[in-house]
Amino acid sequence: MKGIVNFTPGPSQLYFTVEDHVRAAFREGIPSLSHRTKEFEIISKHTTDGVKELLGIPSHFHVFFTSSATEIWERTIQNLVAYKSLHFVNGAFSKRYHEIAAQLGKSPKKIEAPDGHGFSMDLPHEEGVELIALTHNETSTGVSLPMNFINQFRQQYPNAIIAVDSVSSLPYPQFDYSKIDSIFFSVQKGFGLPAGLGVWIVNDRCVAKSEELLSKGLSIGSYHNLPTLLQLSKKNQTPETPNVIGIYLLGKVIDDFLRRGIEIMRKETEYKAAILYQTLSTCNVATPFVVEPSHRSNTVIVAQSGVHTKLIAQHLAAHGLQAGDGYGDKKATQLRFANFPAHSKEQFEKLVDELEKIKSN
Amino acid sequence: MKGIVNFTPGPSQLYFTVEDHVRAAFREGIPSLSHRTKEFEIISKHTTDGVKELLGIPSHFHVFFTSSATEIWERTIQNLVAYKSLHFVNGAFSKRYHEIAAQLGKSPKKIEAPDGHGFSMDLPHEEGVELIALTHNETSTGVSLPMNFINQFRQQYPNAIIAVDSVSSLPYPQFDYSKIDSIFFSVQKGFGLPAGLGVWIVNDRCVAKSEELLSKGLSIGSYHNLPTLLQLSKKNQTPETPNVIGIYLLGKVIDDFLRRGIEIMRKETEYKAAILYQTLSTCNVATPFVVEPSHRSNTVIVAQSGVHTKLIAQHLAAHGLQAGDGYGDKKATQLRFANFPAHSKEQFEKLVDELEKIKSN
Repeated sequence: MKGIVNFTPGPSQLYFTVEDHVRAAFREGIPSLSHRTKEFEIISKHTTDGVKELLGIPSHFHVFFTSSATEIWERTIQNLVAYKSLHFVNGAFSKRYHEIAAQLGKSPKKIEAPDGHGFSMDLPHEEGVELIALTHNETSTGVSLPMNFINQFRQQYPNAIIAVDSVSSLPYPQFDYSKIDSIFFSVQKGFGLPAGLGVWIVNDRCVAKSEELLSKGLSIGSYHNLPTLLQLSKKNQTPETPNVIGIYLLGKVIDDFLRRGIEIMRKETEYKAAILYQTLSTCNVATPFVVEPSHRSNTVIVAQSGVHTKLIAQHLAAHGLQAGDGYGDKKATQLRFANFPAHSKEQFEKLVDELEKIKSN
Repeated sequence: MKGIVNFTPGPSQLYFTVEDHVRAAFREGIPSLSHRTKEFEIISKHTTDGVKELLGIPSHFHVFFTSSATEIWERTIQNLVAYKSLHFVNGAFSKRYHEIAAQLGKSPKKIEAPDGHGFSMDLPHEEGVELIALTHNETSTGVSLPMNFINQFRQQYPNAIIAVDSVSSLPYPQFDYSKIDSIFFSVQKGFGLPAGLGVWIVNDRCVAKSEELLSKGLSIGSYHNLPTLLQLSKKNQTPETPNVIGIYLLGKVIDDFLRRGIEIMRKETEYKAAILYQTLSTCNVATPFVVEPSHRSNTVIVAQSGVHTKLIAQHLAAHGLQAGDGYGDKKATQLRFANFPAHSKEQFEKLVDELEKIKSN
């Protein structure tokens, strides 16, 4: 499968340095390194510091390692909600976050928008909300929440925890971390790494909330509750035997990103998104699924390809470009294109060229 | 760190084929393979079938992938206990399993034995026990539960789920799977793989129990509850994006184990354990920590090395042999030696030879 560019939004294309880093890991004995050694603590601290530096996260936030973003959906609810969370649902993944809150015995509320749409800024107020669950980037539909939408909640819900699922957008977006309390991602999307690691970032409001739930006799889980994660992370350790090589590789890829420069990477992301949306807007075999430009994701671009879906996918595949399927029941009528740091400008230019050729048929 | 034999009980020595399998995985595109593809389903089924074949597990058991054995401690309690579990505690890991049940709001009971000791067969009966938690191999102390001890519970507690933590013993032991309902391990010990994957094996009694709890309105968690795991595993899929490369590597190493033959591997394990216990019993710098031979683990061998601990560790290190530290407060007075398939007979013979040399000083 080498030589094919994978535009599936996750697991996606590997960042081009990963295989070399894996080789180095074997040379250094990382795959059998005990997580209770000084060497592991150095690796863990390096990755944690790198995450904060790359994303511009204030030093007082804490970075924890989990197994997946799916796990973090569960952990945020378990640790941060006694009764009521409020979810903004506009696709399969934000819907699943809401369902998980119900499965954990909470009474979650939701505000819904149709697939492919964002939310109005003029929102009804819910009483007693402890956590606002925002999916920054709906991987199923290619809708991204504008920053001014995310940033309004601090004022509207001053007592709530603002939690942002940024699974398929980071490291691209620059958030205002004074306006959010918890953010998370998994490494197999924008970080171009093999799957098996989720990163959960929280501030002290989150830790205090989990301690409050615990003091009221509520269960906040066991090995991955926030007080336990915090206690171990102070020693740069983890409660369980973690995905050691995953933590090592994330640190190495972040080193690569830092050398390249996050601002350059952001500009490249915007350039690649712009040429693909431009092509989709002008070609005659597909259109951008998200109609409103301010709601369009720059990192997961969804094409409404209708009856041309198979034709497009086959043409691209013949040229070494693997489009991602539409999500769920959109499999036959949409295509998704991840736009991550692992996807180069040249690959996007080739993608656009090939789409243009189909247009001219 | 290459060239050093790692006897730490986990993460431990890599199995010698792992690096080649990782190279093959990159050639085949496994690190960026989507978990919603046919290719992943084939890999997942291959690993699942391999686990059952290698361990002699009846076909009606289900094999699920999690992130760690620590997660499975939590999931067994969450899915299989409404109120009361009974834990046999004789070291740090069985103690932690009991604590996790309490953290999840249950009322666990425990029967304790001192570190380095097993349990009497003559046990008081506890009423209302829903789950018996047995740590087959206490990694902290090198105590293993005899099979007749494990096999008694089915008759004594016919309504309870019998759950066996076999983290640091599999694939060595051959269990009687008619006497247990759930068993689990993680891959960085006896399977010689990088950490980041736990394997949870359950029968239909476990699934039925979790459904019973759910029907009573109790939360059994979300993405990793048993009905969800079962539903996805029927399609050879996982609820979340899993550690795809970890699942692939486990299948490949099991292929290697099957080619070598599990009976030969078991005999080698017993031979290696026998020569190390023999040396510890006769040398003048250490003794076996576990006094009662029928309680001694064949896969994690603990030496009571007292004032000689540092001397022994340094001598072994000088000869390329890395002993595992004693656990917790035993760090200065004990050494632990993993005896996994990744540790060859030749390496154990060298270990014993070097221990004998210290003896003669």
